[in-house]
Amino acid sequence: MSLLAPNADIPFNITRLSHVVLTSRDLDKTRFFYETGLGLEVTAHDDTILCLRAIEETGHHSLLFEKITTQDEGMALRTAYRMFSDDDLKRAFDYFKECGEAVEFVERPYQGLTLRLFDGVGVPIEFCATMEQSESRMQRFHTHAGGRLAFLDHIQIACHDVPKAYQWYSNLGFRLTEYTAKDGTDEMWGIWLKRKNNTQDVVFSSASGPRLHHFAYHTPELSSIIHAADVMASLGLADTMDRAPGRHGIGNAFFIYFRDPDGHRIEIFSSHYNVIDIDHKPKRWELTDTRRSQLWGFPAPKKWFSEASKFRGVTVKPPLLDASPTTLEEYLINR
Amino acid sequence: MSLLAPNADIPFNITRLSHVVLTSRDLDKTRFFYETGLGLEVTAHDDTILCLRAIEETGHHSLLFEKITTQDEGMALRTAYRMFSDDDLKRAFDYFKECGEAVEFVERPYQGLTLRLFDGVGVPIEFCATMEQSESRMQRFHTHAGGRLAFLDHIQIACHDVPKAYQWYSNLGFRLTEYTAKDGTDEMWGIWLKRKNNTQDVVFSSASGPRLHHFAYHTPELSSIIHAADVMASLGLADTMDRAPGRHGIGNAFFIYFRDPDGHRIEIFSSHYNVIDIDHKPKRWELTDTRRSQLWGFPAPKKWFSEASKFRGVTVKPPLLDASPTTLEEYLINR
Amino acid sequence: MSLLAPNADIPFNITRLSHVVLTSRDLDKTRFFYETGLGLEVTAHDDTILCLRAIEETGHHSLLFEKITTQDEGMALRTAYRMFSDDDLKRAFDYFKECGEAVEFVERPYQGLTLRLFDGVGVPIEFCATMEQSESRMQRFHTHAGGRLAFLDHIQIACHDVPKAYQWYSNLGFRLTEYTAKDGTDEMWGIWLKRKNNTQDVVFSSASGPRLHHFAYHTPELSSIIHAADVMASLGLADTMDRAPGRHGIGNAFFIYFRDPDGHRIEIFSSHYNVIDIDHKPKRWELTDTRRSQLWGFPAPKKWFSEASKFRGVTVKPPLLDASPTTLEEYLINR
Amino acid sequence: MSLLAPNADIPFNITRLSHVVLTSRDLDKTRFFYETGLGLEVTAHDDTILCLRAIEETGHHSLLFEKITTQDEGMALRTAYRMFSDDDLKRAFDYFKECGEAVEFVERPYQGLTLRLFDGVGVPIEFCATMEQSESRMQRFHTHAGGRLAFLDHIQIACHDVPKAYQWYSNLGFRLTEYTAKDGTDEMWGIWLKRKNNTQDVVFSSASGPRLHHFAYHTPELSSIIHAADVMASLGLADTMDRAPGRHGIGNAFFIYFRDPDGHRIEIFSSHYNVIDIDHKPKRWELTDTRRSQLWGFPAPKKWFSEASKFRGVTVKPPLLDASPTTLEEYLINR
Repeated sequence: MSLLAPNADIPFNITRLSHVVLTSRDLDKTRFFYETGLGLEVTAHDDTILCLRAIEETGHHSLLFEKITTQDEGMALRTAYRMFSDDDLKRAFDYFKECGEAVEFVERPYQGLTLRLFDGVGVPIEFCATMEQSESRMQRFHTHAGGRLAFLDHIQIACHDVPKAYQWYSNLGFRLTEYTAKDGTDEMWGIWLKRKNNTQDVVFSSASGPRLHHFAYHTPELSSIIHAADVMASLGLADTMDRAPGRHGIGNAFFIYFRDPDGHRIEIFSSHYNVIDIDHKPKRWELTDTRRSQLWGFPAPKKWFSEASKFRGVTVKPPLLDASPTTLEEYLINR
Repeated sequence: MSLLAPNADIPFNITRLSHVVLTSRDLDKTRFFYETGLGLEVTAHDDTILCLRAIEETGHHSLLFEKITTQDEGMALRTAYRMFSDDDLKRAFDYFKECGEAVEFVERPYQGLTLRLFDGVGVPIEFCATMEQSESRMQRFHTHAGGRLAFLDHIQIACHDVPKAYQWYSNLGFRLTEYTAKDGTDEMWGIWLKRKNNTQDVVFSSASGPRLHHFAYHTPELSSIIHAADVMASLGLADTMDRAPGRHGIGNAFFIYFRDPDGHRIEIFSSHYNVIDIDHKPKRWELTDTRRSQLWGFPAPKKWFSEASKFRGVTVKPPLLDASPTTLEEYLINR
Repeated sequence: MSLLAPNADIPFNITRLSHVVLTSRDLDKTRFFYETGLGLEVTAHDDTILCLRAIEETGHHSLLFEKITTQDEGMALRTAYRMFSDDDLKRAFDYFKECGEAVEFVERPYQGLTLRLFDGVGVPIEFCATMEQSESRMQRFHTHAGGRLAFLDHIQIACHDVPKAYQWYSNLGFRLTEYTAKDGTDEMWGIWLKRKNNTQDVVFSSASGPRLHHFAYHTPELSSIIHAADVMASLGLADTMDRAPGRHGIGNAFFIYFRDPDGHRIEIFSSHYNVIDIDHKPKRWELTDTRRSQLWGFPAPKKWFSEASKFRGVTVKPPLLDASPTTLEEYLINR
Repeated sequence: MSLLAPNADIPFNITRLSHVVLTSRDLDKTRFFYETGLGLEVTAHDDTILCLRAIEETGHHSLLFEKITTQDEGMALRTAYRMFSDDDLKRAFDYFKECGEAVEFVERPYQGLTLRLFDGVGVPIEFCATMEQSESRMQRFHTHAGGRLAFLDHIQIACHDVPKAYQWYSNLGFRLTEYTAKDGTDEMWGIWLKRKNNTQDVVFSSASGPRLHHFAYHTPELSSIIHAADVMASLGLADTMDRAPGRHGIGNAFFIYFRDPDGHRIEIFSSHYNVIDIDHKPKRWELTDTRRSQLWGFPAPKKWFSEASKFRGVTVKPPLLDASPTTLEEYLINR
């Protein structure tokens, strides 16, 4: 296992997580949850899709729902990253081709040139450099509501093969900032990988996968996260809380998790930090160190570890490293 | 000058400041300022009146505007306090009659039994014990907006004769919590008087008067006060800020002051404290101690000291104690 | 069951909760928990006692620990209220004597005249009007730490006979602000009683009792409560968290609960509201309405309901109304 | 004037602002101001230097003071940026050499390889890639104090030739995010340039220069900025406030400015936003649009525009574009 900085010779520049595409059985219910509840802005809504974004985002969407007519549980359709320019996308196309990946350019509404492939563990991912722009709501403060969510920050993938994910993303220049390893070994259980200037754009944790465990929006103020919970309760959505407030040791996030009407899990959090310098060493946490998951606060309930959104058409495989952290249920027994 | 606790033999119980009644030349503009801007709730609005209240208030209004058809500058019509019960009001009627005051019962919309008179320095004041009740917005968090104002806390009266005001309100059981005196003397320049459990229901400061200098709403979070300013700016109301954020030494309030469309001045503030015990001694501040007015922050501009809302029909008299604190304009010259 | 306002003919004026007296097996550990962790100020500490108070308190203590040399679990020694003046205390002495209560004046360090008796359900309570005064830390902002706790607000008593407690305290002028009743009946399960201007000075909830369930300090900012948890975690005290953050429906408090080194439970909370007016009606909550206990957030664990500090020498009796709210453990099973 | 994205062919990667080096006449006074007051961490202090850093910083210092024995007013010695690796530094050395710049490697305590030169407008700047590392205080929450400053974010240079600065930094890959231009013209008055993921690492504004106008630390919570002011006031440092709280239109920062014991100006601020994407267009503000400088709040006093720290040994030249924004003094006259 190497914790070296990413290869500088990669011929394209991935800059950040861009957006997430999910299914919804009822776009109106989904809209109520994200717009009225959490305070995201709706930028498009018709019979088939719903697009949303956060306060400081100028791109068209960071969250996109596609309507499904079946009663299937929520599925993830794809996750997407930005590259800096269309030239990067073209160089990436050549690069992936040469690697033997099934890569293709696809048409996506509101987006510029878009590249599509599967990552090393089977997650459908796309890359684009541009998106339809419009002024953000940042300085229209009277429209800030719910959790005053500022921007889409990261996704977490429940992953059957974390080392393979680590290898694949490292090769693209993603950098490891923190990680969990099985106590006293080199076996990685969870990895925090990033391109932008903070601790993560994508996280992989060991579980049946690949599945989308959650996506996360950042908000700078602690009180906004509490206010989001208050608003959700006001609206009759209190029981969508999936994990009570606490602070992660990893990444330092103060968080609350919710489940949307289709069961997709969203984290709202604050208090990330900058990782930019070459001499910033990845921080290691032992799997059994509960401070890793909660510096304080109760552990997550069983379902937080077991439930996640499948990627449509992608086979879920059992985890290579089958070691489970303590659940809330177990914690209460031994307390 | 006596700083003794109020007379326990007063035959009625004034409990708190209740509401303020002001003129408006344009109720729609007034509504935009207070509802859309600062986040108060409108409980009544027709061609002649506009009633508003804050988040935790269950009574019908704490702020009432009466439409005037002239282009007169904003005038205050009356200030009002609560007594505990109608029995208190009746005993108060007898008490004031006996004192020779011109006291009368008046009809007021949305209020129960209401007593009217003038205080010792000419301010029209009213007392009631009950008001039409409805559930507050406290737990409808999705409706909290602007400064998330919690309750009407106090008024400040620009007053030509502060000692007389002190005497009159002390006789009714108001208690002095903090005060400003001319350096090294017993001459009171400003007095903080209270009935409820914090530092003030009414403040008198030496100036031409009586005039309503401002009324003040409390909000518990510092960030809500800043957010109110942000929202006002979003709405094109940034230039209604009358005094930039700062912290008063007296009362410990973190504040911003605004002027409404008719020139009425409103303070939004946080960080008051409890005053309940008999052994709590009034805190004295010297007039020239600028920490009194701003523990930090710039002094108030000249207009903050000179402009205030006249009470309709009440003659304004020059102050007995004509000592002026440093204005922002003077401060900048000597800095 | 009567929900009438308190009897105005009570010949003395109880003003607020004053302080709580508890045992400690190790005053240094206790001090570390409350001073270094939660940020209270130590005003006295020797081999036998430890006195603490909060930021805006000018009285000598609101929390007092007496050292015990045995390894007994934490016990409560007494709870104390303020009356307005020594004259009130003397009238109260006569009143209680006439009622046949075993009332006496006792000597207490740092306090003025102090009255001692047992309340109607066996809790040892004391009353005083004055306490040694010193300037608070309110405007020494550089000393504010931990949860920036502002003042002792209330206690909660686990009580075998809630109706009797209600009767006894009502007779002294305590007023009911909110309450929980067994669904569809008049049987009170929990009562919020107050003298000062907010929702509670003392709460009684149905359980084996009397025992001190917790005492609670108020802090105005949500973020201070989160910061307290962060600080506790930094200091290795994360596992003293007894109940994760949430918002009570009753009283509207955003809360966290901790257990101190002797097992005493402390709540830190924000967001109470004013109750002053006669027309403020007590708010009823059904026992099975979980929003009562948590507007949002997970239910409290079993121990939160079962464990509490016994009053030394006072027999604990089983509850008259043996109806238990859902515990976290039960909630997780059915989720 | 070109607003194009930076040249992708630059053979080195500047990543962010690193640190600032200033003079101090009295290191103890300087320490009291920054450590006790604003809450920075001291990482080194002897008779000749004082090193400080913010909460999440793992490098040795972001602020370094060198003791001077004269009574000269505060001077800036140099500003410094990070490159990603030592290889970048070496390529930069060659690049600058080829451009004819007087570039050299210098020894700096606690730093790795360090490159020194003057920028296009005469500012002494240095680049390094590594610095002595130690665990940050991020998760030692009990040590967070003052303004809870998170990281050094940017500097502002009072500059006689803003277009030349723009050209020089653009050539190094700095990107323009917002700018002020003389109304209706292409003449740039102020430019916000960045390498990291937010709006600025360095700002140039038109004035006599080059001089260091201020350096700025970021903190995520609005209330921490207010608390910093409270703490400064508690410590007798209230009059070091150089500009009262307000919100800049440019960059969206909620700010307070202070002057340290040597007159160096520091901004503490929150609420920046991400700029990462290629399709993010620089935002233009007209010079006479006061919302540029204050979305709300009073304008800065005259001294804020005229006073700044000279760079030792560097000649100050008059500005090419001599257009001054409205000062607080002028604003008050016309109000």
